[in-house]
Amino acid sequence: MNKKISDKVINRLTLYHCILSDFLNDKIEFISSKQIAQLLHIDDSQVRKDINLLNNSGKCRVGYIVKELKISIEKTLGFKKTKKAFIIGSGNLGSAIANYGNFTDYGLNILALFDNDPNKIGKVINRMKIQNVNELESVAKRENVDIAILTVPRQFAQATADFLVKANIKYIWNFTPTVLSVPDDVQVWNENLMGNFLQFTYNI
Amino acid sequence: MNKKISDKVINRLTLYHCILSDFLNDKIEFISSKQIAQLLHIDDSQVRKDINLLNNSGKCRVGYIVKELKISIEKTLGFKKTKKAFIIGSGNLGSAIANYGNFTDYGLNILALFDNDPNKIGKVINRMKIQNVNELESVAKRENVDIAILTVPRQFAQATADFLVKANIKYIWNFTPTVLSVPDDVQVWNENLMGNFLQFTYNI
Repeated sequence: MNKKISDKVINRLTLYHCILSDFLNDKIEFISSKQIAQLLHIDDSQVRKDINLLNNSGKCRVGYIVKELKISIEKTLGFKKTKKAFIIGSGNLGSAIANYGNFTDYGLNILALFDNDPNKIGKVINRMKIQNVNELESVAKRENVDIAILTVPRQFAQATADFLVKANIKYIWNFTPTVLSVPDDVQVWNENLMGNFLQFTYNI
Repeated sequence: MNKKISDKVINRLTLYHCILSDFLNDKIEFISSKQIAQLLHIDDSQVRKDINLLNNSGKCRVGYIVKELKISIEKTLGFKKTKKAFIIGSGNLGSAIANYGNFTDYGLNILALFDNDPNKIGKVINRMKIQNVNELESVAKRENVDIAILTVPRQFAQATADFLVKANIKYIWNFTPTVLSVPDDVQVWNENLMGNFLQFTYNI
C-alpha cells in the first residue's frame, strides 16, 4: 500500500473502523457501504471510493466482511506499527487522554505522563506513572520516544515546547489553544478545538 | 461576508487568530503573512490567500495591523454570534473542556455540565454547575440550547445520544470514540482523536 492517502480519507477510514468494531462486538458479519454511509450521513459512493483504496477490502456479494474490512483498514493505516508517546501535563485533559481507552488498538502506546507538580508526581493514571518532567529527556532517549502529547495550561505551552525540542522530541500533538514556535525538523499537529467547533457551527 | 469558507480555511484562520492574540498580548502592532506562515510551517502565499477572503484585513505597508486582522477574523467566523451549549459527562474530558479557558472568546458559551452521578451533581467546575441529566430537556428548552458536547464513556455514548435527540438537541460535538446513530436532522461533529493522530503520524 504505497498510495498516498489524504487526511480526509484517513479521518473517514478511522470512523469506518469505529463502526466495524461496533458491528463486530454485536457479532454482525457483513456490512454494506450504505449502512456505513447512513451512520455518517455521507454518500455511499464516497464510502465505496474510500474502501476501494484498500487492499483486500473483504468485498462479497452482500457488501463487505466486517472482520476483513476492519483488518484491511488497520493494515493500511498502520495500527500495528506501534508509536510510543508521552503525555506532558497530567491535569484533566492529560488524564482524559491517558484514560481514553482504545488508543493502543490504533498503535498509540502512551508510556508515561510527565508533570512538574510534586503533588502529582508518582501517582498512577490508567497504569501509567506520572513522572517528574526533569526525567523526560533521559526516559525519551532510553525508550526511544519522539512523540509528545502536550496538555499543559496555555501559559506554559511555549516554554514546555522549547523544553521538548531540547529533549529531542520530533512530533508534538498540541492540545493547547496556542500556536507553538518550533524548529523546522519538529512537526506539530494542532488539535485546534475551537477551529473544529467553528467549522461545526459555522452555518448555525 | 456570504462567501462559503471551507473547513480547512476556517481551521487555519482560527490558528492565525491564536497567533494574533499572542502578538496583541505582547503589544506587537504589525504582523506579516511570512511571520504567520513561519509559525505554522506553511507557505506564506497560502496565508495571504486565506486573509484575502476577509473584509478589512487591516493590510498596510508592513503587513497587517494585528488588531484589525484579528477583529476581521472574528467577524468572518462569527465569534460574536454566541452559541449556547451543554457538556454531557463531567469526567476528566468534560472537566477539561469546561476549564479550557478561552471558548467564550470564540462565541461558545457553555451553560452547564450534566451528569448522572449523584457524587458529581451539584459540584461546580469553572463557575458551571454540574446538573442532573434528568433536568437537561427542561433546561435546554428554557435556555434555548441545541448544542451538546458529548464526553461520556464510550459504552454510554449511543444511549446518551438517543437521550439528547429526544431532548431536542440538534448538534452533538462528539468526543467519544464511537460513531453515533442519529436522525437526519441532527448533526454530529466527530472529534475523531485517533483519526487525527493517524493523520499526524501516518508518515512516521
